[in-house]
Amino acid sequence: MKTQTLKGFRDFLPKEARKRQFVLDTLRKVFESYGFEPLETPALEYEEVLLGKYGDEGDKLMYRFEDNGKRRVALRYDQTVPLARVVAQYGNDLPLPFKRYQIQNVWRAENTQKGRYREFLQVDIDTVGSSSPLSDAEIIQVAYRSLKQLGFKEFKIYVNDRTIFSGISNEKIREVDKINKEINDEARNRLVENFIAKNPQMKKVINAKKTDRITKVFSALESMGISGPEIEFMPILARGLDYYTGIIFEIEIKNFPIGSLAGGGRYDNLIGMFAGKDIPAVGFAFGFDRLIEAMDELNLFNGKNLGGVKILVTNTSDKAPKIAEELRNQNINAELYVDEKDIDKQLRYADRKGIPYVLIVDDKLTLKNMKTGEQKEVTMETLPDELR
Amino acid sequence: MKTQTLKGFRDFLPKEARKRQFVLDTLRKVFESYGFEPLETPALEYEEVLLGKYGDEGDKLMYRFEDNGKRRVALRYDQTVPLARVVAQYGNDLPLPFKRYQIQNVWRAENTQKGRYREFLQVDIDTVGSSSPLSDAEIIQVAYRSLKQLGFKEFKIYVNDRTIFSGISNEKIREVDKINKEINDEARNRLVENFIAKNPQMKKVINAKKTDRITKVFSALESMGISGPEIEFMPILARGLDYYTGIIFEIEIKNFPIGSLAGGGRYDNLIGMFAGKDIPAVGFAFGFDRLIEAMDELNLFNGKNLGGVKILVTNTSDKAPKIAEELRNQNINAELYVDEKDIDKQLRYADRKGIPYVLIVDDKLTLKNMKTGEQKEVTMETLPDELR
Repeated sequence: MKTQTLKGFRDFLPKEARKRQFVLDTLRKVFESYGFEPLETPALEYEEVLLGKYGDEGDKLMYRFEDNGKRRVALRYDQTVPLARVVAQYGNDLPLPFKRYQIQNVWRAENTQKGRYREFLQVDIDTVGSSSPLSDAEIIQVAYRSLKQLGFKEFKIYVNDRTIFSGISNEKIREVDKINKEINDEARNRLVENFIAKNPQMKKVINAKKTDRITKVFSALESMGISGPEIEFMPILARGLDYYTGIIFEIEIKNFPIGSLAGGGRYDNLIGMFAGKDIPAVGFAFGFDRLIEAMDELNLFNGKNLGGVKILVTNTSDKAPKIAEELRNQNINAELYVDEKDIDKQLRYADRKGIPYVLIVDDKLTLKNMKTGEQKEVTMETLPDELR
Repeated sequence: MKTQTLKGFRDFLPKEARKRQFVLDTLRKVFESYGFEPLETPALEYEEVLLGKYGDEGDKLMYRFEDNGKRRVALRYDQTVPLARVVAQYGNDLPLPFKRYQIQNVWRAENTQKGRYREFLQVDIDTVGSSSPLSDAEIIQVAYRSLKQLGFKEFKIYVNDRTIFSGISNEKIREVDKINKEINDEARNRLVENFIAKNPQMKKVINAKKTDRITKVFSALESMGISGPEIEFMPILARGLDYYTGIIFEIEIKNFPIGSLAGGGRYDNLIGMFAGKDIPAVGFAFGFDRLIEAMDELNLFNGKNLGGVKILVTNTSDKAPKIAEELRNQNINAELYVDEKDIDKQLRYADRKGIPYVLIVDDKLTLKNMKTGEQKEVTMETLPDELR
């Protein structure tokens, strides 16, 4: 029988699943602290809700099919269109501005390649219903604080205003954006020069000065404690998507060539598509897989409490279940070995599972430190302190 | 444009999403404290991985289709078959017993009715690779502790051993199970009597004594602190599914007629289906939607910290963003009002969002208690204490 996952789909075994959970718990706490609220929408929507909203490319990559009741349905392709549907459907029940975060999987039948998957988690936060510079600044602030909270250091926040590109063709915008992706400063400057030489009309874009909106956003960010070299106006930042209408931004980690970890901007013509009117919105998304990858490479999971148990209580006495439960009652995650195997097997199990301590239960209690191999006799009174 | 969800599919707006998150966070902590580890599997699997594993009924209710690459695929129908696949696929990387929990959506094209959905969250925990009575008892213990932790009181844990039914047809087993679902004791006794009158061969089942395994499990549970009237041997408990091979159990809340909140048992012939050998397993699942419903009705969410902000800082001064951030730095969830509206609108926003306090920022700081309407002047030094 087949025992494999579809291409572009992944199992997350405990070690990886724990990292993901840790990041999500951290992000949720930050989002909540700013007043953003959780939203969940279904995996399947009527096809017509999603179709035609992401361009031809999106329609092609969407998982669509006919369900058992002959309805045309499609799997969630992003979280912005469902948000737009929710805003139209429950508008009166949602206090405006509606600040929501949404963390769910989306499905896209992409060509799979390194770091690109057909099922992946999206982490979106958006403020719907405000056009103020403060709402722009807050979105950038939340992205920044989230990365800080995860342990990232030395940021570069690049900010631009899409109105700078008004009158410029999408093709040219994409070319500029590509130049901006070059991370070597020198190489980038050369690309910019070549580009201007070939496209003199782009000179005014590339040498553009801060717009009034950018000045306001920078000033709001300064009052939020974000200023100086961490934040930079970047007139050649374009972000691929056509739908941005104002501020756009990306956050990179200095000297770490993985590209942007978070990006977003203002898009005032999208959320109202179901409601039949313009509704202003600003938001950002994390590249979740890239975030995990970056944290792995920068060792940011080290020393973090990712869950798991502190101690394995051996199944070597009838007292073991009670002892394990007593430890849990003292807020110590304690696993009871539930199978009937000899003590060597139980120790090997603790080792493989990465459990730092084993309590060997006998007439007396022996605590074994699995890292050092050290053993010592303990009592239920001294044990909690030994584990701290 | 269509602004509705498919029948049987649901949006969860913030208030509901928060409850769900609270329950999941609570459950995950309990599971982790016993050494259970998280697992995630894809939403889509090869159709042949899932097909034929849930009987004709399951095949019929499964969401199946052909993807863009002409592969036959199916949406996750439960989390047990994916677990079986994972065990076969990564067997050597998984320390046995493999204790895992899995909390993901599943999709079933059920006839929708009250409390039955086509997309719903499953909360499963299982111990794979042990046949010990201790592993049976631990599963029951974890279910019990989880419900305790959520605030439920006065349990009835019904336990039976499916081997008691050996030689009895599935049809009869299902009839017995249906009788057991009658919660009025008197009515149930009458049903049992009628049933025995018609099926004298069932008398030995219905009057069965505790099996040796049940005795062992009860004794293990006692050493885990679960005994007395909370736990009861119930020989007419059958649980619908054919696949159980040993201990089965269900947990109900006394005097609360919502049916069982958790149930499970031992199933030794299922997990090995992909690996081509018998692998023992025991587990349980929560009825997640029913859990939320029960907690709602019993007011168990009252007084719980479900997230959200403590205070809204009004956008009435340039100092507001800094003040809000200072509060967050003191671990107080503080929302800045980001739109440019008059103070009345801002107060109404706080009210609608259920934010308990508003800080009106001006030359001075005024704290308004949204419940009592009381206002008082505060400073940044006195404010944190006022909020505690």
